Amino acid sequence: MDALAHIDAYWRAANYLSVGQIYLLDNPLLTEPLQPGHIKPRLLGHWGTTPGLNFCFAHLNRIIADRDQDMIYVAGPGHGGPAAVAHAWLEGSYTEKYPDISRDAEGMRRLFRQFSFPGGIPSHVAPETPGSIHEGGELGYSLAHAYGAAFDNPHLVVACVIGDGEAETGPLAASWHSGKFRDPGRDGAVLPILHLNGYKIANPTVLARIPEEELIKLMQGYGFRPHVVAGDDPSAVHQIMAETLDTVFDEIAEGGRPPMIILRTPKGWTGPKEVDGLPVEGTWRAHQVPLAAVRDNADHRAMLERWMRSYRPEELFDAEGRPIAEILRTVPEGPRRMSASPHANGGELLRPLTLPDFREHAVEVKAPASTFSEPTRVLGRFLRDVITANPDNFRLMGPDETTSNRLQAVFEVTGRAWNAETLPTDEHLAPDGRVMEVLSEHLCQGWLEGYLLTGRHGLFNCYEAFIHIVDAMFNQHAKWLESSKRIPWRRPVASLNYLLSSHVWRQDHNGFSHQDPGFLDVVMNKKASVVRVYLPPDANTLLSTADHCLRSRDYVNVIVAGKQPVLDLFTMDEAVAHCTRGLGILEWASTDVGSDPDVVLACAGDVPTLETLAAAAILREHLPELKVRVVNVVDLMRLQQPSEHPHGLADAEFDALFTADRPVIFDFHGYPWLIHRLVYRRAGHHNFHVRGYKEEGTTTTPFDMAMLNDIDRFHLVMDVIDRVPGPSAGAAHLRRHMVDERLRARAHTREYGEDPAEIRDWAWPY
Amino acid sequence: MDALAHIDAYWRAANYLSVGQIYLLDNPLLTEPLQPGHIKPRLLGHWGTTPGLNFCFAHLNRIIADRDQDMIYVAGPGHGGPAAVAHAWLEGSYTEKYPDISRDAEGMRRLFRQFSFPGGIPSHVAPETPGSIHEGGELGYSLAHAYGAAFDNPHLVVACVIGDGEAETGPLAASWHSGKFRDPGRDGAVLPILHLNGYKIANPTVLARIPEEELIKLMQGYGFRPHVVAGDDPSAVHQIMAETLDTVFDEIAEGGRPPMIILRTPKGWTGPKEVDGLPVEGTWRAHQVPLAAVRDNADHRAMLERWMRSYRPEELFDAEGRPIAEILRTVPEGPRRMSASPHANGGELLRPLTLPDFREHAVEVKAPASTFSEPTRVLGRFLRDVITANPDNFRLMGPDETTSNRLQAVFEVTGRAWNAETLPTDEHLAPDGRVMEVLSEHLCQGWLEGYLLTGRHGLFNCYEAFIHIVDAMFNQHAKWLESSKRIPWRRPVASLNYLLSSHVWRQDHNGFSHQDPGFLDVVMNKKASVVRVYLPPDANTLLSTADHCLRSRDYVNVIVAGKQPVLDLFTMDEAVAHCTRGLGILEWASTDVGSDPDVVLACAGDVPTLETLAAAAILREHLPELKVRVVNVVDLMRLQQPSEHPHGLADAEFDALFTADRPVIFDFHGYPWLIHRLVYRRAGHHNFHVRGYKEEGTTTTPFDMAMLNDIDRFHLVMDVIDRVPGPSAGAAHLRRHMVDERLRARAHTREYGEDPAEIRDWAWPY
Repeated sequence: MDALAHIDAYWRAANYLSVGQIYLLDNPLLTEPLQPGHIKPRLLGHWGTTPGLNFCFAHLNRIIADRDQDMIYVAGPGHGGPAAVAHAWLEGSYTEKYPDISRDAEGMRRLFRQFSFPGGIPSHVAPETPGSIHEGGELGYSLAHAYGAAFDNPHLVVACVIGDGEAETGPLAASWHSGKFRDPGRDGAVLPILHLNGYKIANPTVLARIPEEELIKLMQGYGFRPHVVAGDDPSAVHQIMAETLDTVFDEIAEGGRPPMIILRTPKGWTGPKEVDGLPVEGTWRAHQVPLAAVRDNADHRAMLERWMRSYRPEELFDAEGRPIAEILRTVPEGPRRMSASPHANGGELLRPLTLPDFREHAVEVKAPASTFSEPTRVLGRFLRDVITANPDNFRLMGPDETTSNRLQAVFEVTGRAWNAETLPTDEHLAPDGRVMEVLSEHLCQGWLEGYLLTGRHGLFNCYEAFIHIVDAMFNQHAKWLESSKRIPWRRPVASLNYLLSSHVWRQDHNGFSHQDPGFLDVVMNKKASVVRVYLPPDANTLLSTADHCLRSRDYVNVIVAGKQPVLDLFTMDEAVAHCTRGLGILEWASTDVGSDPDVVLACAGDVPTLETLAAAAILREHLPELKVRVVNVVDLMRLQQPSEHPHGLADAEFDALFTADRPVIFDFHGYPWLIHRLVYRRAGHHNFHVRGYKEEGTTTTPFDMAMLNDIDRFHLVMDVIDRVPGPSAGAAHLRRHMVDERLRARAHTREYGEDPAEIRDWAWPY
Repeated sequence: MDALAHIDAYWRAANYLSVGQIYLLDNPLLTEPLQPGHIKPRLLGHWGTTPGLNFCFAHLNRIIADRDQDMIYVAGPGHGGPAAVAHAWLEGSYTEKYPDISRDAEGMRRLFRQFSFPGGIPSHVAPETPGSIHEGGELGYSLAHAYGAAFDNPHLVVACVIGDGEAETGPLAASWHSGKFRDPGRDGAVLPILHLNGYKIANPTVLARIPEEELIKLMQGYGFRPHVVAGDDPSAVHQIMAETLDTVFDEIAEGGRPPMIILRTPKGWTGPKEVDGLPVEGTWRAHQVPLAAVRDNADHRAMLERWMRSYRPEELFDAEGRPIAEILRTVPEGPRRMSASPHANGGELLRPLTLPDFREHAVEVKAPASTFSEPTRVLGRFLRDVITANPDNFRLMGPDETTSNRLQAVFEVTGRAWNAETLPTDEHLAPDGRVMEVLSEHLCQGWLEGYLLTGRHGLFNCYEAFIHIVDAMFNQHAKWLESSKRIPWRRPVASLNYLLSSHVWRQDHNGFSHQDPGFLDVVMNKKASVVRVYLPPDANTLLSTADHCLRSRDYVNVIVAGKQPVLDLFTMDEAVAHCTRGLGILEWASTDVGSDPDVVLACAGDVPTLETLAAAAILREHLPELKVRVVNVVDLMRLQQPSEHPHGLADAEFDALFTADRPVIFDFHGYPWLIHRLVYRRAGHHNFHVRGYKEEGTTTTPFDMAMLNDIDRFHLVMDVIDRVPGPSAGAAHLRRHMVDERLRARAHTREYGEDPAEIRDWAWPY
């Protein structure tokens, strides 16, 4: 056999195995005629995209073998599970990962049976699939993942098959421009293969139905050299594909304008051409299961058998069901196999970050709450040193907000990745910049996911409100991590770290559209085993939190921290201790020392902490007999039951902090019901009164934002007075005073456009 | 003055008014030298994009006047608030909407003062801005909104200025292909103006820095005829822009390949060229406030004054501050003014839907829970008739899932909108189709928003898990509605209706990535005044709910309904009554009639309702002495306090249904804590035990999905036994039996790949 014949045989084997997965419970080698009992009762899976994915994989294997090329494969078309599994089995890596799925007839039977079957494996490419960094569930992220994998992997080529359905999504459409952020010197190459099989679920696709001239221009407009491979006669398309891949990999080796491939082959290629009088191959009817009634309909069953036998399994597998040596001739060795690449199980390659001592960036705190720092500005200096110490495996992502979020110290040592035109007036642009800024949260997230899943580290800084843009991507990544934890061979990867700044309480100037703390609610819906949420109230606690997150594995860490000046509360040692506990009493702000409190003022988030401290100061001055305890929460998960989250406080500890019977006025950064949801099983829950963002906002001042939502110091004092039994005359007087103070602050704001100075510059007065 | 001189004068006036808004508290006409007291204490706003927006607006006005063209203006660059406000004031519509902002010096002073000032208006284009359908907060949706506005408005041109920052986002990148879904025969035209000023916040932009040849190809690849207008000398660029617009509007009138404009002008054009020795005009430094220290720095203040006087205000406004007649010569009349177009206040044009009688589509229910229907299939027949009765103001959106969601009856009367190549094998494609299917939830949402805000109706059907893709867009639209309710001149528009099908409990076959009911949590964070959530449990309640939602105004309605067969529970009359109440006791399934229940089984969602009924049947058979009440909830908002939501049940009614002291086992469609969050203030909350999705999922069967998350009938019975005091010997026996039944069902599933028939086909046995 010549090379193309080998490739064709391998392709037929992969197609055979794909069809078998979709249909068969038993009789994997068709050693007897197909019976109803051999057929799965529920036919699930997607044939349509599969032969195209198999085709690309088969041809890329030849390139790997010929050129000893390091390569991984990202299968964008979601429903290509059977293809990726078939290859892993043919290449032997499936059996290495799952020894009970042996590379013989019994293994093949199990391979078929488990596919999309209860207790088995998903129908999509998934964490369970060897060689995959990309879940084929929600569509649109393949190309961003591919670029993320290629960054800082100079010798890697990431082949990325993009379905023409997926190509209609926004995130994919934006991803074509990723090349402007790729450094040819230190990044690997991405080879996009736009697979136009013409249809999505039930419709034609846009890119398959525009004139080819337009499509070519589009790809050129994205910055590529497009190559078209088209046809429906396998032997002809084999020839064109092989030649094109040789050209394309020469082009990649030469550098310059990157190539891409437009592959036009029929949907469901080599499957049934017509079923019950309707065309199937080459139409949307091939999307899922072309023959739907094979268990009950003998004609359909016979068609299935003819279809499977058309791949000539007897030439592909020996009597024991093992793939014959001939078809494995183009399969690479060991880690060169795309199904066994360590890049696709990034934990195998993960090097821990070299972390400088965050304590060196501590702000000095001589007395609590008497000086101010900008937390993210302080963090920026730590991140600068992280970048210096880890020049090839750490990246900072952000949608053009790194400076706005005051992390600009990083630009002392690196630039923004940029591989397009530069002008003399530009600043901090560099092809190999460690900071990636594109005005697309989708790209920031997608690139970072690809980067992390291939064994590197990073942090995504974002305006809090707009992180909702990637809610769905976060969900999918969290699910990937949840699933991966159950897969023994998946090695831990670095956590996905979010730094949410420019948050709801300090988007007063940008207005209502920029005010939304709800990402925390989305995050908290995911499994306790993978999500962590931190609200450090000052610069030193932010440093400690960030250091902790950068060391962690397999989590999504969300850090909410302000960029505006906030009071310094903790010395560095205190900050580390406070963050380690996750929450604690601020003794110096409390007046209940040595006794039980009358009321607990709890807080989470920088602005709520400031307002809580101010309220505590007012109470100390005006109601000195009232015993007030101030509790600050950094790690939100501490509030949950230990049965719900590994960070959860034991009930006894929780009650010791919050009491079981005293009013708790909880001032919270986000929507108030999140706190109720976390503490609803606690003994004292009915005493919790939570203030938070209740969707009141506009263009105004910071303190007016607080007042609009009743999280301000004056309202907290009113809340205390309303809830402490038997208020004194002094309390009633103070309450009226608080109402007046609110009116006065509001009037000042309306008149002068800024908060009264005594509020803006308030510090702990004792 | 010739036409260009008029346009230039108008442009200078708009620029002057824009700068004034950003900087001035007083002295609007510069009748005296600028003093610190004239300057706002906090300088907020964005100059960078503003002169470009003003430039386009000025030139488009000439076209409107010359051609009597109906046109609206979508300002994509978020921070263009000052521009849109300036035009509305110049055109007189601002004063019509806000009479205290008169078109004279005092009005100008107020106009300046209120901008981005507490108690004033946002710095972005917002609902408060006359002539706007597009909030300039979160970026990426301008072009989708523009197409949505153009659909079914054959005589309208939507001019859409796209910022080059925004152009990096995914949703915008996908929107360029919207033309493939536009019918030249019955839809209006969209004129994209890609405004390349070169920078986003702190970075250059991709499209400004690729070779022009590439950019031209990109736009041709998107299907446009691009026209370049570039320069920095105003008089030259005026000339080119005017000629180009004449050409472009001729091309629009002729039909054929649609034109678009690439406009390259400096960021912060006509602003300070250099400040403190650094270049500003034409760089990212012009993004926000080019002169930052004008209050304290006399040099900066002098520069500001020179800058403002460079527009020669004395030639533009008379001594009373009124714009002189000459500069208003190109301003259109009445509703032709883009700032006064009724299209941009869609409620003015809103015609109620002609709604066929949904009762005609009722399924017959002779006995409750004895027959099965597919709810969305039944709904599809109603939607078909809605489409027939409303051929020009109703559209059905979906990411290629309309048939998958079983709404395919609509294709009996209409097609899918499609204006690209068609093949003989295609089905249900039509240029004027009422169904819009593109594999982009962002486009579905963006088009629908644009369509609704210009006074039409629609419904977006989507897989439940993937609606998270538009979480952020939902947030922004909800905020738009919330704000609009406070603006007297904004007329009510049709609600945004979501139909979420293919939901978490029936994505068993597609696996973990497709299982996520968390959109409800996102929705519930928004204001009670604009969000509604419905979980109709059967076909007839779905019909009643859909009819109600299609009649409503200014809400976001979320309907969760399955496509798989579910038990028919309600006759049509019963369904209407049940939906009107929003929740109620299923008497026929309850055994507490005439007395207090021992336990309440509550449910919301179709699968939880089925499981709850099955549990009730088991309890009735095995523990006949136990008094069980079954409560079904359709309208989730009924659970909240009336103080929290207008639909909230009074406490007395709530307690009458759920009791204050009996265990309530609540089987819920979504994440369980959502129910806790809704009922935490109710007297009986501590008795609520909620089952729901707890992020357990895989590729399996429907009943196995229920068991994985403990929402299944057997577990509900166990929950009852665990919570009813003093269990009998019979109860202990039944509990063991339930454990066995779960094991048996699971084993069956693992063996046969499907649920046991008696579970799959279960119906109410009495």
